[in-house]
Amino acid sequence: MSDQAPSVRTQVKRVPEVAAYDRASIDAVLDEALVCHLGFVDETGQPYVIPTLHARVGDELLIHGSSASRALKVLADGAPVCVTVTLLDGLVLARSVFEHSVEYRSVMILGTARLIEDPDEKMRALEALTEQLIPGRWAEARQPNDKEMKATWILSIPLDEASAKISLGPPDDSDSPDADLPVWAGNLPLRTVVGEPVPDPEAKQDLPVPDSVRNFTRPGWG
Amino acid sequence: MSDQAPSVRTQVKRVPEVAAYDRASIDAVLDEALVCHLGFVDETGQPYVIPTLHARVGDELLIHGSSASRALKVLADGAPVCVTVTLLDGLVLARSVFEHSVEYRSVMILGTARLIEDPDEKMRALEALTEQLIPGRWAEARQPNDKEMKATWILSIPLDEASAKISLGPPDDSDSPDADLPVWAGNLPLRTVVGEPVPDPEAKQDLPVPDSVRNFTRPGWG
Repeated sequence: MSDQAPSVRTQVKRVPEVAAYDRASIDAVLDEALVCHLGFVDETGQPYVIPTLHARVGDELLIHGSSASRALKVLADGAPVCVTVTLLDGLVLARSVFEHSVEYRSVMILGTARLIEDPDEKMRALEALTEQLIPGRWAEARQPNDKEMKATWILSIPLDEASAKISLGPPDDSDSPDADLPVWAGNLPLRTVVGEPVPDPEAKQDLPVPDSVRNFTRPGWG
Repeated sequence: MSDQAPSVRTQVKRVPEVAAYDRASIDAVLDEALVCHLGFVDETGQPYVIPTLHARVGDELLIHGSSASRALKVLADGAPVCVTVTLLDGLVLARSVFEHSVEYRSVMILGTARLIEDPDEKMRALEALTEQLIPGRWAEARQPNDKEMKATWILSIPLDEASAKISLGPPDDSDSPDADLPVWAGNLPLRTVVGEPVPDPEAKQDLPVPDSVRNFTRPGWG
C-alpha cells in the first residue's frame, strides 16, 4: 500500500487527513457503489455530470452506454474525463453549525478513456458490468446479440490517477471550547437496504425469484 | 407545469420518455437528496466532479465550502458549472442483459454561480444548508461566528436551466420476444434507512438525543 498521490492533480489538498491513495481503499469504494458520476466537457467548455453504472475490472473502470451517447463520443475521442463515486454513510452532528458534515467515502478518477472495440474484450466487459450490478445475473439472463452489441459502447478508464477521500467518525469539536456547550453531538448512521423483489406485473410466466435477486447485496453492506 | 425544456442543452435527447422539466419534479429530487455532484473545469480543460452538500431555496441551489476551495474560486469567477443530483431507487432486472438498468431520479442544473457576499443573505443561506441536512438543527447548535463566516463561501446557482430524468417501474421487455423466455424479470427496490444515533464518545455531558436527530427523515422517504 502506498500513501503517495499518483499525481499533483489527484492530491487531496485541503483536508489531507482523509486522503487515501492505496488501491485497496479505492477499490472498496468502487466495488460497493452502484452508480458513478461521469464528468466531461463539451466543445463550448461547459462541464456535464451524468450518473451512470460502472464496473471495476483489475486496474480499469468500465462504463457503458448507447453508441448514440454524446458523452461517450466525446470521451472516446480522447477528451479528459473525471469519474467520481460517492458513498454516504451518515450525518456528522457537531456542537457548532460550522462543523456539521456527513460521513462519506468517495473516489475521484482522472484520465482519458479508451473505447473497447475487440469483440471478446467487449463481451467480457458487458459481463463485468452486469455482474457489478447484480452478481450471478449474467448466467441467468439472455446474453447480448449482435444488434445489442453494436448499440452499446464501452469505455475503459485506467485507475492510475485515482484518489479516495474517507471521512468517518464522530464530530471533531470535542477538544474545542464548544465541547462545554449543552448541545448533543454525534453521528446518525445511514445505510441502504434491499426491499422485497417485485415481479414484472406483465410477466407471462410465474417464475421463482432467482438466486441473484434473492442473494443481492454489496461488498461492505455486511 | 411545463414539459418544455428550458434550453437546448438541458433537453433530454435520447430517452425523452423519462424527461421532466417542471419545477415540482426537479424540486422533489433536490429536496430529498443529501449530496450533489458539482462539475467544473480547470484552466487546463480538465473536468472535476466533487460531492458536496446543497440546499434548494426557492429558485436557487446553494452550495458551500471553504473559502480556500479551488472549485469555489473557479466557480465564483464565473466558470460554467454543472450540478447533478441522483437518487437510486432500485434495480431493473430484465429478461435480457441488455435491458438491465436501475430505477433512478436525477436532476442536472447548468449555469454560472454567484458568490453570496451580503452578510444577512449569507447567514440565511447557511441556515438553509443546515436545515437541508437536518431540519431543526439550526436552532439547536451553536451558530456561526465571524471567523467561521469568513472561512465559508456560499455559491448560488439559479434553477432556470435544469432538467430531471425519472426512470421508475418494471423492465420494458414484456412486449418483446424476450417475454417468452423462462427468465424472472422485475424490480429490486433499494432504500435508505436511518440507524440509531451514536453519541460522540468524547462528549463531556450526557445529553438527550434532540428532536432534530430523533425525527430525522427526508421528503420522499415516507
